[in-house]
Amino acid sequence: MLEQLKQEVLEANLDLPKFKMITFTWGNVSGIDREAGLIVIKPSGVPYEELRRDDMVVVDVEGNVVEGRLRPSSDTPTHLVLYKSFPKIGGIVHTHSPWATSWAQAGRCIPALGTTHADYFYGELPCTRKMTEEEINGAYEVETGNVIVETFQGIDPMQVPGVLVHCHAPFAWGKDAHDAVHNAVVLEEVAKLALQTYTLNTNVAAMEQCLLDRHFLRKHGANAYYGQTQN
Amino acid sequence: MLEQLKQEVLEANLDLPKFKMITFTWGNVSGIDREAGLIVIKPSGVPYEELRRDDMVVVDVEGNVVEGRLRPSSDTPTHLVLYKSFPKIGGIVHTHSPWATSWAQAGRCIPALGTTHADYFYGELPCTRKMTEEEINGAYEVETGNVIVETFQGIDPMQVPGVLVHCHAPFAWGKDAHDAVHNAVVLEEVAKLALQTYTLNTNVAAMEQCLLDRHFLRKHGANAYYGQTQN
Amino acid sequence: MLEQLKQEVLEANLDLPKFKMITFTWGNVSGIDREAGLIVIKPSGVPYEELRRDDMVVVDVEGNVVEGRLRPSSDTPTHLVLYKSFPKIGGIVHTHSPWATSWAQAGRCIPALGTTHADYFYGELPCTRKMTEEEINGAYEVETGNVIVETFQGIDPMQVPGVLVHCHAPFAWGKDAHDAVHNAVVLEEVAKLALQTYTLNTNVAAMEQCLLDRHFLRKHGANAYYGQTQN
Amino acid sequence: MLEQLKQEVLEANLDLPKFKMITFTWGNVSGIDREAGLIVIKPSGVPYEELRRDDMVVVDVEGNVVEGRLRPSSDTPTHLVLYKSFPKIGGIVHTHSPWATSWAQAGRCIPALGTTHADYFYGELPCTRKMTEEEINGAYEVETGNVIVETFQGIDPMQVPGVLVHCHAPFAWGKDAHDAVHNAVVLEEVAKLALQTYTLNTNVAAMEQCLLDRHFLRKHGANAYYGQTQN
Repeated sequence: MLEQLKQEVLEANLDLPKFKMITFTWGNVSGIDREAGLIVIKPSGVPYEELRRDDMVVVDVEGNVVEGRLRPSSDTPTHLVLYKSFPKIGGIVHTHSPWATSWAQAGRCIPALGTTHADYFYGELPCTRKMTEEEINGAYEVETGNVIVETFQGIDPMQVPGVLVHCHAPFAWGKDAHDAVHNAVVLEEVAKLALQTYTLNTNVAAMEQCLLDRHFLRKHGANAYYGQTQN
Repeated sequence: MLEQLKQEVLEANLDLPKFKMITFTWGNVSGIDREAGLIVIKPSGVPYEELRRDDMVVVDVEGNVVEGRLRPSSDTPTHLVLYKSFPKIGGIVHTHSPWATSWAQAGRCIPALGTTHADYFYGELPCTRKMTEEEINGAYEVETGNVIVETFQGIDPMQVPGVLVHCHAPFAWGKDAHDAVHNAVVLEEVAKLALQTYTLNTNVAAMEQCLLDRHFLRKHGANAYYGQTQN
Repeated sequence: MLEQLKQEVLEANLDLPKFKMITFTWGNVSGIDREAGLIVIKPSGVPYEELRRDDMVVVDVEGNVVEGRLRPSSDTPTHLVLYKSFPKIGGIVHTHSPWATSWAQAGRCIPALGTTHADYFYGELPCTRKMTEEEINGAYEVETGNVIVETFQGIDPMQVPGVLVHCHAPFAWGKDAHDAVHNAVVLEEVAKLALQTYTLNTNVAAMEQCLLDRHFLRKHGANAYYGQTQN
Repeated sequence: MLEQLKQEVLEANLDLPKFKMITFTWGNVSGIDREAGLIVIKPSGVPYEELRRDDMVVVDVEGNVVEGRLRPSSDTPTHLVLYKSFPKIGGIVHTHSPWATSWAQAGRCIPALGTTHADYFYGELPCTRKMTEEEINGAYEVETGNVIVETFQGIDPMQVPGVLVHCHAPFAWGKDAHDAVHNAVVLEEVAKLALQTYTLNTNVAAMEQCLLDRHFLRKHGANAYYGQTQN
C-alpha cells in the first residue's frame, strides 16, 4: 500500500540527519496521498539509522492507523490539522533544528532581512502566539495545529512554507515530503543568518518590499526565471 | 568480572567523541552494578581512540580499585558521591562540552525555555554555588559531589538528570551509562538553544508550567505516550 | 570549446561544497577567456553532486549562449558587468556563505580588524548601497553589477577582491576561477572573525595602516616574501 | 639530518588540519633540537595535503637554512626569538584559529574563567600590546617575537604556554612540537568558552585563585595526580 509514498517519506526522513537537522529522534516527516486521503508518517521514537520503509505508518485523515506495526509520531495530530487546513501542501516536517528553535524560544518572528529569505519565504516567517492552558492541557497536538492555522489567517502557506511554534520549534511544509525538508533546511539557514544579522545590528529593518518581490517571484510563479524549468 | 558492564561503559565512553562532546580526554563515563556495589569507570587520561574494554577500572563504593591495570579517572570520587546520594541512577558522565561549560563558567542556571528542555529536564537546570576555599583545598573531588548533592535538595535527580558545576563544567546521569550520555548530549543541545535564545531576547522568561508539564509527562512517567513502549 | 576553462570552472564550482560555502545550489562560479571574449559559468539551479564539465555554459560578453544545453546561472548578467568593468579579473564567485551574508544583511562594511584580513584585502571590505526601486524592478542582475562597480570607484578590485551586496550576499573574484573561490573562502573567514570580534568589543577600531600595509605587501606586489615564489 | 625531529614536526603540522585549526596554509609548527642548536620548521605557503617530511626546512638559531629545498615559513624569525628567550620550550605553533584570533583582534586578554582554562594555563592568557610603527616597518617578524617576550616578563612560559598577538593571532608552545599543537587546540577551545561566557555574562569575574591552583597543580608539577604517569 502506497509503496512509492512510503519510499519518499522514508528518504525525506533520512535527509534530516544528512542535513544535520536533528539530534537523536527529534524530528519527523510525513507525506499525503490526497486522492486516497491517506498520510504516511515516521513512527514515534525510532532511531533514524534503523528506519526502514516498512516502519512507515499509514494513517487516515482522522489519525486511525491503516497500516503499520508501529505507533505513528506523537506529532501526527498536528500534521493532520495542517493537511486539512492547507489543501495544497503534500509534505510536512517537524524538527528542533537549533537556530530556528532559538527564535521559537525567544517568541520572535523572523523578519525578511535578505534575499536568501526572500527566495523562499514571501515575507516575515511567523511565530505563533503562546498556547493557552486549556489548549495545552487539552488535545495538545491538535491545538498545536490549530494555533499554526490561526497564525496563517491572511497568509498563503505556499508562499510562507514554515512557522515557529512559540516555546517549541519549527514546522515546515511543501508540495511533497522532499520539498518540505528542503524548506526546513532553508528555514534553519535563514534563522541562522537573521540571528547573526541581529548580533551586528539590533535595529535592522526588514528588507524593502520591491527586493522581496523581485527575489520571491524570480523563483516562484508564472514569471520565474531561476533553474532549468521553463515556467 | 562485570564484563557486560565494562562493555557498556566502554561503548558509552566511545559515544562521547562520536557525539562531538569532548576535546582530547576531557570526559569520563561510569556505570554501577548496584547489587555488587561496584562501579566501572574510564581510566584517567587515556585517549579515546586507544580505549579497550580491559582498560576499564572497577572500583568499590569507597573508591578502592578492585580490578584494572590503570588508575581510574581523577573524577572518580565525584561519581561515588553521586551514586551514594542518588540511589536510582545507574550511570554518570562528566564532560567539558562547550555550550554547557559556558553556562557553568557564567555561573548561571539554564531556565526551561522550550519543549526541547522540557522533554528531558523537568524545570531549571541548576548551577551549583561556588565552592569554598576549604572545599577546594580539601578532598576536592568529593566536595564537588557534595555541592552537587546540596544543589539537589528538593529536586528529584531522575527528573533533572544533570547539573552545571560553577566555574567548571556539566555532569549528567541516567538509568545506565548509555542513558547518562544521552542526557549529556541533550544538556549540551539545550545549553546551545538557551544561549542563542538569550542573544535574541535577554529578558526571555521561563516557559509556562503547564507546557513544561505537558512535554515532560508526554515522555516520562505512567502516562507517557512518546515512542514505541506502552507505559 | 574551451575545454580547459570548463574543467577549471567545474572544479572551482565543486570547491564550494568542499569548503562548506553553500547550501543546495546557492552559489556559482565563472571564468573568462579574455582573448576569446567568452565566459564559462555554472548552469542555473543544478545540484553540485550532478554537475559535469559538459553542463558548463559558454556565453559571450553580452550574455548570449554560445555553447551548452542548459540555461546559465540567473546571476550571469552580474558576472558580465564585473568582467567588463574590472579588466584584470579572470574568475568570479557568488555565494550566500552565512557569515558574509550576515554582514550584507546588516548593511555593514567589514573593517580591517587584523592580519587575516590584511593578508588578502587591502582595506575595508565594502558593502554596496541599497539598490533603488528602479534598479530592482529593472534589469536587476545587471544593476547588481553596476552598484558593485559604483562601490569600487577609487578602489582597486585586485587589492580588495570581494564585496557585500546590501541585503543580499557576497561576490568575490580573482585572477582565475580557482583564485576567486580562494578569496571567497577567505572573505567568509574574515567575516566570521570580525563578527566574533565585535561580540567582544563593539567599539573596536580598524587596525593601524602600517600593519595593514605590512601584511598585504608581505603577500602581494613586488616585494612579497610569503610562499615559495620569488617575486 | 634530524630525521626524527622532521617526522615529529611533519606530524605536528598535519595535526593542524586534523583538529580544524587552519584554513588553507595559515599555520606553521616548528621543533628544536637544543643540543644541535637547530630548528625544523614548515616551509612557507605549502598546502598541508602536499606536505612531506623532506619538505621540512632545517635552520640554525640565526635563521640560516642548513638543509631543505624550500624557503622556511615567513614567521621563522618569530619562532627563533621565542626559542632563544624561552629556554625550556621545544616546539612552537602559530595559527589563525578563529576563536583565539577574535580575542586577538579585540585586543583582549582571556581571563581564567573556569577549570578548562586552569587545567592548562596558570592564569590569564595575555594579549600583547600594539606594536609600534617602527617595529612593524622594521624587522617585523623578529619584533613580533620581541613583543611576546616583553609580554611574558614575570610570567613563566611553561605555565602559560600561549599568547595572543594584538590584531594578529595566537602563538602557542610546549615541551615539543606535539605538545605545542595540543596547547594550541586547548587555547582555541578556551577562547571559544570565554567568548560564549561573556555573551551570557559580560561582567563575569576571573575564577578564584584557589580553584585555579587546584586544577593547574592537579595536572602539572610534583603533586600532579591526573593521567597514568606517577609524578
